[in-house]
Amino acid sequence: MDTISKGHPGGTRVAHVMDSIRQRIAARQLVPGARLPSIRGYAAATQVSKSTVVDAYDRLAAEGVIRSRPGAGFYVAGHLAPLALAEIEPRLERSVDPLWVSRQSLEASDAILKPGCGWLPSSWLPQEALQRALGTVARAGDATLAEYASPLGSAALRQLLARRIAQRGISASADQILITDSGTHAIDLLCRFLIEPNDVVLVDDPCYFNFQALLRAHRARIISVPYTAHGPDVNLFAKALAEHHPRLYITNSGVHNPTGATLTPVIAHRLLKLIEAHDVHVIEDDIFADFEHEPAARLASFDGLNRVVQIGSFSKTLSASIRCGYIVARPDWIEGLVDLRIATAFSGSRVAQEVVLAILKDGSYRRHIDTLRARLSNAMQETTDRLATTGITPWLPSAMPPAGMFLWCRLPSGLDATALAGQALLQGIILAPGNVFSPSQSAGEFMRFNVTQMSDPNIFRMLAQATRGVR
Amino acid sequence: MDTISKGHPGGTRVAHVMDSIRQRIAARQLVPGARLPSIRGYAAATQVSKSTVVDAYDRLAAEGVIRSRPGAGFYVAGHLAPLALAEIEPRLERSVDPLWVSRQSLEASDAILKPGCGWLPSSWLPQEALQRALGTVARAGDATLAEYASPLGSAALRQLLARRIAQRGISASADQILITDSGTHAIDLLCRFLIEPNDVVLVDDPCYFNFQALLRAHRARIISVPYTAHGPDVNLFAKALAEHHPRLYITNSGVHNPTGATLTPVIAHRLLKLIEAHDVHVIEDDIFADFEHEPAARLASFDGLNRVVQIGSFSKTLSASIRCGYIVARPDWIEGLVDLRIATAFSGSRVAQEVVLAILKDGSYRRHIDTLRARLSNAMQETTDRLATTGITPWLPSAMPPAGMFLWCRLPSGLDATALAGQALLQGIILAPGNVFSPSQSAGEFMRFNVTQMSDPNIFRMLAQATRGVR
Repeated sequence: MDTISKGHPGGTRVAHVMDSIRQRIAARQLVPGARLPSIRGYAAATQVSKSTVVDAYDRLAAEGVIRSRPGAGFYVAGHLAPLALAEIEPRLERSVDPLWVSRQSLEASDAILKPGCGWLPSSWLPQEALQRALGTVARAGDATLAEYASPLGSAALRQLLARRIAQRGISASADQILITDSGTHAIDLLCRFLIEPNDVVLVDDPCYFNFQALLRAHRARIISVPYTAHGPDVNLFAKALAEHHPRLYITNSGVHNPTGATLTPVIAHRLLKLIEAHDVHVIEDDIFADFEHEPAARLASFDGLNRVVQIGSFSKTLSASIRCGYIVARPDWIEGLVDLRIATAFSGSRVAQEVVLAILKDGSYRRHIDTLRARLSNAMQETTDRLATTGITPWLPSAMPPAGMFLWCRLPSGLDATALAGQALLQGIILAPGNVFSPSQSAGEFMRFNVTQMSDPNIFRMLAQATRGVR
Repeated sequence: MDTISKGHPGGTRVAHVMDSIRQRIAARQLVPGARLPSIRGYAAATQVSKSTVVDAYDRLAAEGVIRSRPGAGFYVAGHLAPLALAEIEPRLERSVDPLWVSRQSLEASDAILKPGCGWLPSSWLPQEALQRALGTVARAGDATLAEYASPLGSAALRQLLARRIAQRGISASADQILITDSGTHAIDLLCRFLIEPNDVVLVDDPCYFNFQALLRAHRARIISVPYTAHGPDVNLFAKALAEHHPRLYITNSGVHNPTGATLTPVIAHRLLKLIEAHDVHVIEDDIFADFEHEPAARLASFDGLNRVVQIGSFSKTLSASIRCGYIVARPDWIEGLVDLRIATAFSGSRVAQEVVLAILKDGSYRRHIDTLRARLSNAMQETTDRLATTGITPWLPSAMPPAGMFLWCRLPSGLDATALAGQALLQGIILAPGNVFSPSQSAGEFMRFNVTQMSDPNIFRMLAQATRGVR
């Protein structure tokens, strides 16, 4: 306002009119295409001079906020500002913006090191099984290669998934399973089904960063509860439910991202009682289930898929290129979810579903997972040991998470994770600084490491150098 | 209200309180989980007795609209009603519900005949080329089979698409192209980017039925303008813009679905002038482009991708099982679209993109399309001739559409398309009755036939029988 008022008698009055209109547009009291009050009318109603209103309207038009239509007055433009996730409040530094880390990693060339990314190196995935399965599918004939998948997805795959899910203590028929294009697609579909704009959604702090990006795309209001080594802090969880009335809670059980923590049965039970009392629904993202040596507690198994819906995927364990995830939900939700899926994506990939089915069926997935678990344990041990020499320490009391690829670490005191990630990027290394995962921005001293992406010695060289300065 | 008041002194006052609360919930002045005013407070504020409020609250609780929490008052339930597209007003007969026709066709077994569906029989698609391409991709190595696609999608595919699009008079660089999972996914992403709940969106009447389902999923308000043989009725288009201030117009240019009509340059030009004057954006769904013998006018080529964004797909011409579509947009929209894509789907299928690229590159797609166009012309001629014997007549003055698989027909007077579709279904034949495509429900005498799905003589036998009755 100061800049505007300089040298303009009455400039602050102009700025006041401009602010007032901007606020009405932001609050959608004035919607795009709406006609603004006439200059005479506005001046009379707000007790300012007509020349002030003319000046304010002209400046807003110059900014593109409103548009003049000759002979017809001024209208709210608004169409010039499509939904830009990066601009939704709170605006974050790009380096701790959840979307930025995803984009950096997805766009990175092979020369870039990615200890901050959320996936396995492709050499860890079952290349031969994928090649064989693609060959099988190619020979499968007309319908598989050319036709739309059925709305629920392959019946054979859903039956097989039902049996696999039963092993984790979740009882569901094949008709309660909807195949999606990915885990993210599954959550997106459920958000469409369960929440409306401005609904409150509860997440863990820290949580998988894309939950935040996805919820912003749904125009949800995000609140978060600190995550402990055994699950969310139950007292703060209860307080958040009472104060904010969330409609939905999104979490990873099993292997928690980014902390590697494990939900205990006692916490699961207490959470579910609160969830029932406060009429909340839960999306339990279980995409890391196959990494576990022993299945931990699942909200979905305790709840019997009443308030909890589970989602899974094969992007982390089989292939991120073959897109295939799934939703396991109560029977009366499936119809509505299928309708939404057809409306917004029409159909899934029959080829992708058949490739996953072929690999799950022939035993090669089981053998791959056995090897993968052992390899993950080794990499976890090795990374923990090597990080110890730099003063970077695991957050879990047990030091090593029981399963998975993520190690959530505290940096030596005085080292800021975001600044470190910025330095690392200059050296061609993508890190995942704590605040990317923290809706409350309270994880500035934390870093998530992907132990499968740490083989290059340059990573530890850079970390050693950075930590030397503060020790 | 009458039923409630019967036998209840003061029943209408109870009903009035109930209505008032229901309205506040519907308007989201009371959101799910919100505490209702205390009984004493409500009674005092609205000048009714406490017993009336108690009665109203109890009845609403019995209906599940609100919930009582012992000692803590009453709260809005609301979590019991997730978004059910089938229940959004206006409620349609299931047989003319846009989603129902999609689901019927997608769920149908091979024994069911589908002259109402929107795709080619798999035998019309290039099986050998698909098999060969899958083989090539299987041998392509680690990254292709296992890794996420880059955020924009394969650079080689985007470069190739840019050249193909240029042949239709649309100038765009590869960086203006975003690969999506399908045409529907492309439109969904653009709706996320361009519209907010309650925004008005303009469609053609008739239009592709899934536009309506998709817009309902976005909670948009749909208005429609009659489509003529040369494009939308320009005068009614102008009137709709002036009256309803739509933010977006979604249409098929090239080959219009369901009518097969062709947008003429003069209509395209007049539409664009209106679109500019009223600050509207346009999604031009061009998924049937490759069916055309000669490219018709495109809004995107006249507009230079300023207000018009184009989408394309390979589901209709190559494979519906390999999911691959794309968006061609102005450069300054791409970043925001990529952010939304990552947030809601994370990544596309690298395998799918590579399969499409392999087929486009080696000339087999060009040969397939040449054959396909000739085959479509023959089927169109044959279907037109055979329908003529039943009194079912093409709507276009030219009788046959210049390209594509759809024939939009008027039934003999007195025959209701929805009723006919119902009868046909009993005989294992899925038809697409006119009102599925008509937001105004004014196409009750029309039927869309897919000429590639009409080879079974039972279809014409059934149509002959049905039309005999009214002739």
